[in-house]
Amino acid sequence: MEVKLITSGLVVIGNEILSGRTRDANTQFIGAELNDLGIRLTEVRVVADVCRAIVSAVDALRKEYNYVFVTGGLGPTHDDITAQSIAKAFAVELVCDPEALARLQRHYGKERFNEARKRMAYIPLGATLIDNPVSVAPGFQIENVFVMAGVPHIMQAMLLSVSHRLAGGAPLLSRTIGTDLGEGTLARDLASVQNSFPDIQIGSYPSMGSGRSGVRIVLRSISGKRLVIAVETVLAMVAQLGGEAEELDITV
Amino acid sequence: MEVKLITSGLVVIGNEILSGRTRDANTQFIGAELNDLGIRLTEVRVVADVCRAIVSAVDALRKEYNYVFVTGGLGPTHDDITAQSIAKAFAVELVCDPEALARLQRHYGKERFNEARKRMAYIPLGATLIDNPVSVAPGFQIENVFVMAGVPHIMQAMLLSVSHRLAGGAPLLSRTIGTDLGEGTLARDLASVQNSFPDIQIGSYPSMGSGRSGVRIVLRSISGKRLVIAVETVLAMVAQLGGEAEELDITV
Repeated sequence: MEVKLITSGLVVIGNEILSGRTRDANTQFIGAELNDLGIRLTEVRVVADVCRAIVSAVDALRKEYNYVFVTGGLGPTHDDITAQSIAKAFAVELVCDPEALARLQRHYGKERFNEARKRMAYIPLGATLIDNPVSVAPGFQIENVFVMAGVPHIMQAMLLSVSHRLAGGAPLLSRTIGTDLGEGTLARDLASVQNSFPDIQIGSYPSMGSGRSGVRIVLRSISGKRLVIAVETVLAMVAQLGGEAEELDITV
Repeated sequence: MEVKLITSGLVVIGNEILSGRTRDANTQFIGAELNDLGIRLTEVRVVADVCRAIVSAVDALRKEYNYVFVTGGLGPTHDDITAQSIAKAFAVELVCDPEALARLQRHYGKERFNEARKRMAYIPLGATLIDNPVSVAPGFQIENVFVMAGVPHIMQAMLLSVSHRLAGGAPLLSRTIGTDLGEGTLARDLASVQNSFPDIQIGSYPSMGSGRSGVRIVLRSISGKRLVIAVETVLAMVAQLGGEAEELDITV
C-alpha cells in the first residue's frame, strides 16, 4: 500500500519563548492535533520578533513541507510584525482586508477602534482570513502557510477553524508499553524488532520519577493491524528478557 | 559603549516533542540560563530522530551563532542517533572515548555493561566530554556545539557543568510592568517609547485569565540605568492614558 506522507513545519515567533520567560505550549497542541488529521509535524523553529528571522524560517519551511503553521505576533503593538514579515516572505503588499476591518470595527466600536487596532486588519495580498472566535482579530492563510495568534486558547480555536482546509493522510496511530527494564538491557532486542518492522516507528523513553525507573516504548504506525503485531512482539521480547511489561493507556 | 552580542542556537531532537506526546521543557531552562550568562538564545529548531534532519539543523546553526546546544538522543537504543549525526555534521569519525568507557563500565559493572551501553561511550573524534552527574553517560562538546541529554534534569546538570566553558557578554536584564489597559489602547504611545529607547527591547503580552485582562509590558536591556529610565517612562505613559500600572516581581 502506497501511503502519501503529509508533512508540516511550525514557526513559533516570540522573544518571550527564547528568553525563557514563557514556556511554549503551542507546539504540543499543534503536533497532537495535526497527528489526528494525518499530518506529520516534522520541524519546529522558534525565532525572535525580527523580520529577517521570520522571513527566513517561513521561506525555508514552506518550500520543504506541505503545510506551514505560524504562531504569534498578530497583535496591535510595535513588536507584532508577523503580517508584514509574511508579506515580505511572499513578496506581496500588506493590504487592509475589508471583512477584517468590519469585524474589528464592530467588536471595538467607533470609540475604541483606533489606528493601532486597525493594523490588525492588514494581511498579505492574496491571503484569506482565519476566524478568531475569541478576540475577533483574524489570522490568515496564504498559499500553504497558516498564520495564527500566539495566545494558546486563541491559536487552538483558529487551528480548529481551519482544519477542514487541511488535506491529511492517514493518521499516525500509537501504542505505548511500559516496562521495568533499563534502556541498555532491551536495546539490542528492541533494535532487532525495529529491523523486523521497518514500517513502524519505535521510540524508547526512559521514565524516571514516581519512584520506579524503567522505559516506555512507543510504537507508531498508520496501520492498526501492524501495530497489534508489533506490540505483541515487544511484549514477548520483554518477557523473554525477564522484565515486566504492560500496555499503557496513552494515545498520543 | 560597544557591546558584543553573544548568540546561540538550540537543536531539540525528538519525535516525541513533534508528535505532541511530550511538552518540551528544555528550551525554557536553556533560554533563561543562557540569558544569565549573557548569551542570547536566538533560534530553536525541533527536529525528528532522523540523521539528515539533525545534520542539517546543526550545520545551519553552528555557522550562524556563537554557540549551539543540542538536546536528546544520547541513550543506548536504536533511536538514539545524535552522536553519529553530529560526527557526520563535522565529517569526523565516531570513536570510543576511553574515559567515557571507564566511567560507564564502573557505573554498570561488568555484568550489565553490554554492547548497547558501550555505544554511549562513542563520541565524534576531537570532542571533549560533558560530565553527567546523574546517570553517568556523558554528553560532549565539539567546537562550538554542546551536546546534552534530553531528560530535563540530566540536561540541566550538564549545562551547569559546562557553563564555565561559555564566554558570555553582558546579561540581559529585564523589568515587567502590568497594566489594565488593552494592547490597542497603549500601542501608539508604547511604539513611541520604543522609538525613544532603541537600545531597549520592549515587548507587550496580553495577559488573560485570573479574571482581569490587561497587558504585561516587558523591557529588556543590558543597561540597568537605561532600564530604570524606560520603566519610569512607561509608568508615566500608562498613567497619562488613564490606566493603572505596577511593576511586577518577575525577573526573567
